[in-house]
Amino acid sequence: MKALWLEDRELSVRDVPAPLCEDEALIRVRVSGICGTDLELVRGYYPFTGVIGHEFVGDVVASPDADWLGARVVGDINASCGACEQCLAGRPTHCEARTVLGISERAGAHAEYLTLPVANLHRVPDSVSDEAAVFTEPIAAAVEILAQVPIGPGDRVLLVGAGRLGQLIAQVLATTGADLAVVARHDRQKALLHARGIRTLEPDGVEPRRWDVVVEATGSPSGFGLAAAALRPRGTLVLKSTYRGDVTLALAPFVVDEITIVGSRCGPFEPALALLESGAVDPVPLIEATFPLADAVEAVRVAGEPGTMKVLLRP
Amino acid sequence: MKALWLEDRELSVRDVPAPLCEDEALIRVRVSGICGTDLELVRGYYPFTGVIGHEFVGDVVASPDADWLGARVVGDINASCGACEQCLAGRPTHCEARTVLGISERAGAHAEYLTLPVANLHRVPDSVSDEAAVFTEPIAAAVEILAQVPIGPGDRVLLVGAGRLGQLIAQVLATTGADLAVVARHDRQKALLHARGIRTLEPDGVEPRRWDVVVEATGSPSGFGLAAAALRPRGTLVLKSTYRGDVTLALAPFVVDEITIVGSRCGPFEPALALLESGAVDPVPLIEATFPLADAVEAVRVAGEPGTMKVLLRP
Repeated sequence: MKALWLEDRELSVRDVPAPLCEDEALIRVRVSGICGTDLELVRGYYPFTGVIGHEFVGDVVASPDADWLGARVVGDINASCGACEQCLAGRPTHCEARTVLGISERAGAHAEYLTLPVANLHRVPDSVSDEAAVFTEPIAAAVEILAQVPIGPGDRVLLVGAGRLGQLIAQVLATTGADLAVVARHDRQKALLHARGIRTLEPDGVEPRRWDVVVEATGSPSGFGLAAAALRPRGTLVLKSTYRGDVTLALAPFVVDEITIVGSRCGPFEPALALLESGAVDPVPLIEATFPLADAVEAVRVAGEPGTMKVLLRP
Repeated sequence: MKALWLEDRELSVRDVPAPLCEDEALIRVRVSGICGTDLELVRGYYPFTGVIGHEFVGDVVASPDADWLGARVVGDINASCGACEQCLAGRPTHCEARTVLGISERAGAHAEYLTLPVANLHRVPDSVSDEAAVFTEPIAAAVEILAQVPIGPGDRVLLVGAGRLGQLIAQVLATTGADLAVVARHDRQKALLHARGIRTLEPDGVEPRRWDVVVEATGSPSGFGLAAAALRPRGTLVLKSTYRGDVTLALAPFVVDEITIVGSRCGPFEPALALLESGAVDPVPLIEATFPLADAVEAVRVAGEPGTMKVLLRP
């Protein structure tokens, strides 16, 4: 099958053997999405050789459980062992032996086919298009914030960062009825948010020590600094980006102000699908281009240009 | 009156006017305790000129509310305005206009007299000695951890640091029935903990990625690193010390492992007094020496020697 292969920071579209695993479902990919993590893998921030990609929607064409045959599905990207301490404690996304679709020890979704355990699959409601369903994984990551931090009407919530993931986080946070504002730098970012009725702020327009919850989605030290300064005493700072390299910071203010910092990664798929089905979250306007898988190298280049939102691939 | 005065990093015992404030209670100090924060003030980590000291027990000798006259009391060290956003939101210890006994804009407790608002006072139960009651403030700071993080039987709780504050935190954590261990370096620290039936570990004996909650009470980057490495995924790191200067750290692991970091400062006095009354916490073995206030400069020197636990002053 055709797939987007990463090796030594070099991408190529090549013919590779289709994945084979009788214990897992075989899925023919309809659409896959290029994510910031894909770009970081290409830049070598994580070691990985193989087929990248972890955002997808596809059809089950073979399965150990016949009930899934023919289903249009999305899938949790963390395949867990079910037997380690993390799994037994109800934290399967933190499984000590996990493999991660297109990220760690498991061939990914920028390909004609992929396999995943049946336990990872979620049926896509008929009313949700492929172009929307392919966003389920990053929307689930945004929903994880709500699973970790109670946010409701009346809470002052600031999101720092309005890029690829930030746009989805903004839409998910907007469903809570919180007093939400988003720090956005680029006109296109702002326009997309304003079209959803979401307020934006310039970085220098953020009132310090005001916000109950601040979500940091830039992954940059300057974003972290802005987010920390915006929090009120006993506020909560959610870290929703992985930071490359070390960050130097003064910890004393976090103690004096009794700040809570919450690291946040993968989230639950079912609420994400529910948000897509209801229309409360609409990711489709974020799509900038769709490339055939054969042109995936060019697609990744475009996805990596500053300000690009979502680029999709079709096998 | 006689008081321990700090100015330009120099301590002296001098005669100063007794504090005068008709809106507040006037308290004659029975005993005061020398705390790590006092030592940091002397080292110039915070700017403060005046009478230092914030741990005390004393008698109310004048009060706008006659019910308090003659009462033996301890007192919340943060005097709040009652009118700012933090006060109105129920966070008086974070009052934007707060003064802090012997720390910020308010004369402290290493003196013959101090004043505090009546709202800050707590009566000391008759069965609690002066020598125990003088520890109410740091015990309250330890209790703050339980107010912020649910800890119960079956939780694996690691405390890093067994000094002055660490000893009290250990005793408070032991009341929860958690599986508790304390990283202690010095024999005297270990002996005090073992006498309370609390288990200790060497730094290199800490199993990584095992602990549900880790409390960091060293305030050092090495302590922070040890604490972070000990946490299991989705664990909680409580920062119970103020860190001097900047700390350089990789934030990505906190995101990947979805760690929660909680800054923790001052806590509630009533539960602290209840722990003293029941005997569940007994701080008296931590007392190493009691000096007359006239010898307070020497007392601070002794308190600053490595390994010294608690030094008290008597006016």
